[in-house]
Parts: sequence; structure tokens; C-alpha cells
Amino acid sequence: MKKLFKPNLYVALVHYPVINKSGNIIASAVTNLDLHDMSRAAKTYGVKRLYVVTPLADQKELTQKIISHWTSGKGSTFNPKRRQALDLITIKDSIGDVLQEIYLAEKSYPKRVVTSARESCGYTSFEDFHKLLENADPYLLIFGTGWGLAEEIIVQSDYLLEPIKGNTDYNHLSVRSACSIILDRIIRG
Amino acid sequence: MKKLFKPNLYVALVHYPVINKSGNIIASAVTNLDLHDMSRAAKTYGVKRLYVVTPLADQKELTQKIISHWTSGKGSTFNPKRRQALDLITIKDSIGDVLQEIYLAEKSYPKRVVTSARESCGYTSFEDFHKLLENADPYLLIFGTGWGLAEEIIVQSDYLLEPIKGNTDYNHLSVRSACSIILDRIIRG
Repeated sequence: MKKLFKPNLYVALVHYPVINKSGNIIASAVTNLDLHDMSRAAKTYGVKRLYVVTPLADQKELTQKIISHWTSGKGSTFNPKRRQALDLITIKDSIGDVLQEIYLAEKSYPKRVVTSARESCGYTSFEDFHKLLENADPYLLIFGTGWGLAEEIIVQSDYLLEPIKGNTDYNHLSVRSACSIILDRIIRG
Repeated sequence: MKKLFKPNLYVALVHYPVINKSGNIIASAVTNLDLHDMSRAAKTYGVKRLYVVTPLADQKELTQKIISHWTSGKGSTFNPKRRQALDLITIKDSIGDVLQEIYLAEKSYPKRVVTSARESCGYTSFEDFHKLLENADPYLLIFGTGWGLAEEIIVQSDYLLEPIKGNTDYNHLSVRSACSIILDRIIRG
């Protein structure tokens, strides 16, 4: 374990554009436990910010309510560890807006690394991504909800990360599990 | 990755006896997404059975309703991958009942391996647990809900597994994240 390994890593959880079971592009609903689990994993592995991407006004409002409950409401005193995690979250309308915010902070656009459980070719392995993170450049690791990221997001990315394989043919982890395992693998190297 | 590594591993998610924020022993409520996320992770990593432990009648009924929706109800045809995962779950009143069922299947009691985020001494490392799993003996990996397993469960166990460390001082992962990362680490070795 490299305790001092502090990559310049951002994470986005995308609710639009993603696909549904039929392969159609949709905007998915925000899931309360995605916010909790992914922000806690992000905090554990030193991620600089967790972006929740949705253009829907009601979903943005709901997400902000959940975050505020734990960061400034009753939850913040009941469980300060949750506050530390949820403080990492910023809500954005689009991946473009995420890229813009990171650009303003870093003075360069992050490389976009998409995750997918689907088989494809031309993957970046977890090991190679770990090596990429050893330079100081910013990276944005992008997760899709629903049945996964829309193709347009995948083709616009710089890297497609290797899918998680266990010791079986079953590869249907939740996005919460996948994010936790991927962060563990790429930070540990 | 050892694709053919098939350990004799069972997992239990315990809702009693666990502790609350104040350290008192309680029975926690079953969380829907624990069932989904942990059964999908268990299926991915070849776990033989996922036991949900609660002595509360209403919680057992709720858990069975959720499972049945996905294994024989509408969910089973909507999403057969969920069925495959949730089929792994068996509800039990106590850890004693879990041990008894495994004994009947295996003709020997499993070694009990408890997980905890708290600092302690005398850990079994993930690497050493992986080596233990290379023999054919059954192991039961035990996760607590709430603020963690009650001390009586920890002292009765055979092994205390190393806590997960990221690259920060923050160690407050959800049980769903912790289970996913631990299975990934111990199966990969």
C-alpha cells in the first residue's frame, strides 16, 4: 500500500445521458445510497471531488436536499463522518460543465476515463491507469447509472477502463460496488 | 487473476447482535440495497451462499418479500440477473443457525472470519485469508450492519480480518462497499 499516493483524480456519476434496459437514452433518477456510498469511497481513496451529473431540476433539488441534510442539517451533527464524505459532492448539469469546473481549478482539462461492464476492445488496465495517475495530470473517472453510459460519452473519452472480473462469468455489480472496487484497484496499483 | 479459484466461502450479513452509535447492542433494520449489492458481489466472486441474519419476524418477512419479487415475482422476468444474485440469499435467525446449516452441507463447521473497520491487533491479512481459502475447508465471512458487530461475535470468531485502508485516514465505507472490496481482495489474492 502506497500511503502517500495522492492522484489528481475526480469522479463523476452520470444520470444523463445513460441507457435503459432497451438501449434507449434516458435520464435516470438519483439514488440516495449512491451519494452516500460513492462519496464515502471517494473520501477513503483521496478523490478530489465527486460530481453528480443530472440536468433535471427536481433531481438536482432532491440531491441538494440529501447533501444539505448531512452537511449542514441535523445529520451533520449526528454523523460528522457523513458530512466529510458528502462535502465532496458537487451537482452539475452535464459532463461538459464538470470538465469546465476542473479546467478552472487545474488550468487543464482532465483526461476522461469511462467505465463499462460491457466487453469491448482497447481497454486500459487497472495497472496502467494506476501508472497514468502517477503523473500530476487531472483525470475524471466516469460512471454511468441505469444500464450504463450512452455511447456518445464512451466515444468522446480518452480511455476505456478494463471491466471488473471476479472468478465467475457474472458481471452485474451495482455502480456502488463497481466504484468501490475500481477505486481500490487503481489507488493500490 | 486466478479464474479457477473457487473457495469454499459463505458470507453472512448480521443485523443482530450489532451495536449502535452509542455502543449499545441492537437489532438493525434490513436495507433493500444491502441485499441487492451484496448478493451481486457474492455472485460475482463465487460465494456459495449469502446469509441475512435477523431474528425479527417483520424484518424476515420484508426481506423475503424483496427476495421473492426478484426471484419469482415480476422482477424475475424483468431482470433475470437480479434473480441469479438474490437466489443466493437465505434468511436465518442467528449466526448459530447459519453455522448449523453450513455444517449440514459441508459435514464440518466453517471457520468464522469477522470484519471490522476498527483498529485492533492480531489481524489476518487479506493475503493470508486468500491462502487459507486455497484449502477446501468452509469459511464464513461475517459483516455487521449498524456501527458494527457486537463484541461477543468478534471474540467467538476464528479470525479477525484486516480492516480496509485507502490512501487517507478516512475509514467509513458502507457495508456494501466494504463487502465488495473485501471479496475482490481476498479472491484475487
